[in-house]
Amino acid sequence: MTKRIAEILRSGEPDDALTVQGWVRTKRELKDFAFLEINDGSSMGNLQVVLSPEMSNYQEVVKGLNTGASVELTGVLVASPAKGQRIELKASTCELLGESDPETYPLQKKRHSFEFLRTISHLRSRTNTFGAVFRVRNAAANAIHQFFQERGFLWVHTPILTASDCEGAGEMFAVTNFNLKEPPRTKSQDIDYSQDFFGKPAFLTVSGQLEAEVMAMAFSNVYTFGPTFRAENSNTSRHLAEFWMVEPEMAFCNLKGDMDLAEAFLKYIFKFVLETCPDDMEFFNQRIDNTVLATADNIINNQFERITYTEAVSLLEKASKTFEFPVKWGLDLQSEHERYLAEELFKKPVIVTDYPVGIKAFYMRLNDDNKTVAAMDILAPKIGEIIGGSQREERLDVLESRIQKQGLALDDYWWYLDLRRYGTVEHAGFGLGFERLVQFMTGMQNIRDVIPFPRAPMTIDF
Amino acid sequence: MTKRIAEILRSGEPDDALTVQGWVRTKRELKDFAFLEINDGSSMGNLQVVLSPEMSNYQEVVKGLNTGASVELTGVLVASPAKGQRIELKASTCELLGESDPETYPLQKKRHSFEFLRTISHLRSRTNTFGAVFRVRNAAANAIHQFFQERGFLWVHTPILTASDCEGAGEMFAVTNFNLKEPPRTKSQDIDYSQDFFGKPAFLTVSGQLEAEVMAMAFSNVYTFGPTFRAENSNTSRHLAEFWMVEPEMAFCNLKGDMDLAEAFLKYIFKFVLETCPDDMEFFNQRIDNTVLATADNIINNQFERITYTEAVSLLEKASKTFEFPVKWGLDLQSEHERYLAEELFKKPVIVTDYPVGIKAFYMRLNDDNKTVAAMDILAPKIGEIIGGSQREERLDVLESRIQKQGLALDDYWWYLDLRRYGTVEHAGFGLGFERLVQFMTGMQNIRDVIPFPRAPMTIDF
Repeated sequence: MTKRIAEILRSGEPDDALTVQGWVRTKRELKDFAFLEINDGSSMGNLQVVLSPEMSNYQEVVKGLNTGASVELTGVLVASPAKGQRIELKASTCELLGESDPETYPLQKKRHSFEFLRTISHLRSRTNTFGAVFRVRNAAANAIHQFFQERGFLWVHTPILTASDCEGAGEMFAVTNFNLKEPPRTKSQDIDYSQDFFGKPAFLTVSGQLEAEVMAMAFSNVYTFGPTFRAENSNTSRHLAEFWMVEPEMAFCNLKGDMDLAEAFLKYIFKFVLETCPDDMEFFNQRIDNTVLATADNIINNQFERITYTEAVSLLEKASKTFEFPVKWGLDLQSEHERYLAEELFKKPVIVTDYPVGIKAFYMRLNDDNKTVAAMDILAPKIGEIIGGSQREERLDVLESRIQKQGLALDDYWWYLDLRRYGTVEHAGFGLGFERLVQFMTGMQNIRDVIPFPRAPMTIDF
Repeated sequence: MTKRIAEILRSGEPDDALTVQGWVRTKRELKDFAFLEINDGSSMGNLQVVLSPEMSNYQEVVKGLNTGASVELTGVLVASPAKGQRIELKASTCELLGESDPETYPLQKKRHSFEFLRTISHLRSRTNTFGAVFRVRNAAANAIHQFFQERGFLWVHTPILTASDCEGAGEMFAVTNFNLKEPPRTKSQDIDYSQDFFGKPAFLTVSGQLEAEVMAMAFSNVYTFGPTFRAENSNTSRHLAEFWMVEPEMAFCNLKGDMDLAEAFLKYIFKFVLETCPDDMEFFNQRIDNTVLATADNIINNQFERITYTEAVSLLEKASKTFEFPVKWGLDLQSEHERYLAEELFKKPVIVTDYPVGIKAFYMRLNDDNKTVAAMDILAPKIGEIIGGSQREERLDVLESRIQKQGLALDDYWWYLDLRRYGTVEHAGFGLGFERLVQFMTGMQNIRDVIPFPRAPMTIDF
């Protein structure tokens, strides 16, 4: 019976007869036999295999079983005399499936830098670190779906291609079917977009929120989970040109409901990942960042602090710490301010609400003070902002006035405004950058190391 | 206590006191009271509400409660004397949240054509049909994740942006950060892509398969589920420029394992949707296509027929039917042939395997006969091809020769070839067009009606 290694390590018992398939991580040849460590990606742990020279093809397979080679082994499990493992496989047959030339295979035993591994993104998932990263990434993604589906939210697929360049969340990539060398032009030498695929300029979305609001006005509770894009030339460890975002949107919900959901959501994901990937999380804590387990514990077991922006500014002004950037009512909080609040002052996640209207997007609901909007940001120790959300402006006249004040054209938002014209309701939502979350969970320093094939300025290989 | 209507209809009991929020579908005023039908998107069924004139704001709210208006109601459930419903809400308070002007609200009681509803995609989800479509779509998507996660597959996010224009699955959209009016040019007047965001031409992916193979070579079993793109100018009821695709990829798996998984997968999704959305599926069967329940039953309860392409051609040649397109070994099967096999001959899903090498992609594994490849297509009654897959060519020399024979450059595939150089294994996978599946399940005729905001030639609104 063929079994995956995660299952064997979890529940295999001595005398179980089985077949296992995987890749060689290490080989040790002793005088009388050889040890293999086999991994199939199902877990951090390898299965130790003992090869005995009684095997008919012993010499040949031992020679070929280099790091990276693929192999199929059949045998019985035995209790392992070695430390650190409960059982091992005593192999009776061994078939070398695919070789891996030790002279050229780029993943040798020694540690490689993450920079180097990015140049071989097609192989890096075979290392301990990236194996753990992508198992945690999958578990977190699965947790997100389970969280929402259990609560009756619909997963809605909002469009990637959009004609609206006015979502306001950042610079957009253009998408075209033209031959760029000689695109059709109008008489006045402008590009004649009427001849392009969509008949007008098209872009890659920066957010599914506006369309998610459409769906929430029919289904009450929905969420998006899909790729979004930024054409910003930010060559940093915190930015990607292509990243995945989660955006729930709830009808009949105000800012308080939004915060409650966001807090429950974060706790759920962290709990889920700790339960499903304990070995991977232990690995990150030991090898990458020895605070990740404490951080997860902090998220799960603390009630998030909730303060207004005005209170936050006052606390920052009173701080004995000197900040690089100024603190003043009306200015946005900088990363250093956010981290001070979460890490030093409250030592747990903090939700800051009711930001000045001048520094937030037009769709956030204007508070009765006419100076602030019903926005909220969740600041976490070690990372700063992890979630940003708001109650949306549901009043037609207020929304129209906000759009116009920002110099945007009402006509571009005709369908968005219709949602306020016909059966408008209080509603709210938030956005979570999925890679930021995985960074936060795993302690990985560079966001390019938590997505399989990162896209960034000058970076589009594989 | 606030409850969603699906839950009330399922398990509400007389005397339950509760609050409900939703949108008015219909209002009927009688002499002594008024009836409302309220929907909140959680189910096909509406909650019937009885408003009594004893309510202090009765006149005012009844006047405002037009189709599309949003409302919050509090009251107790009572057994319904009317046919077709078990319970109804006797409201004690009613708050009109958002009006809906009956003079301008586009969704009036009368039936609207799907063509018209496409022009108001921001409102069409509020109709019975589109409510049902997007609940079924969500259930099918949820089923897909559950199916794979239960089996230990990792959800991997393969890139949307790609520099390789040679995936071979169709025409691609270009993505750029240039001002199209005056992009930088080289001395020879070519576009100077070295100055574009990625330093080279970039495109929207047509398939995540090649990257999924990378991940399968580390994690054994993975799947993608994300948007893919085609820049083909096909203005039909079966094509979208942006659509979602599911692509599992399994290491240590041959064509038989691939077929077994695909068959189990389809059965699982259909069962899941029938169990979670029985009312919606009943609606489709009654109003849209009276064969959809029989089709679902056919998928779930029949063992799929498995025949080779060569056998299929022989059966088609023997058919008493005359086809529009010729049947001859070496030619691809046309939709009419596929439907004849599935609908008329076998009357159930048919998996056709081992197609001629000349009509299939370079990565499909060459069979020992050197004439056919280990490909498989699943043909379903009423729709034709629903899944296409193959065992992949794992032998380096054979793959290199196939790439070259197709006139492609080996250098473009250096990383894909590395997978065969280091620890290569038998592996296989398939692709499912998600919208085709939802069309198939619901009987909706036009693929634009099973995705919230369809993208097609000249179509990119909302």
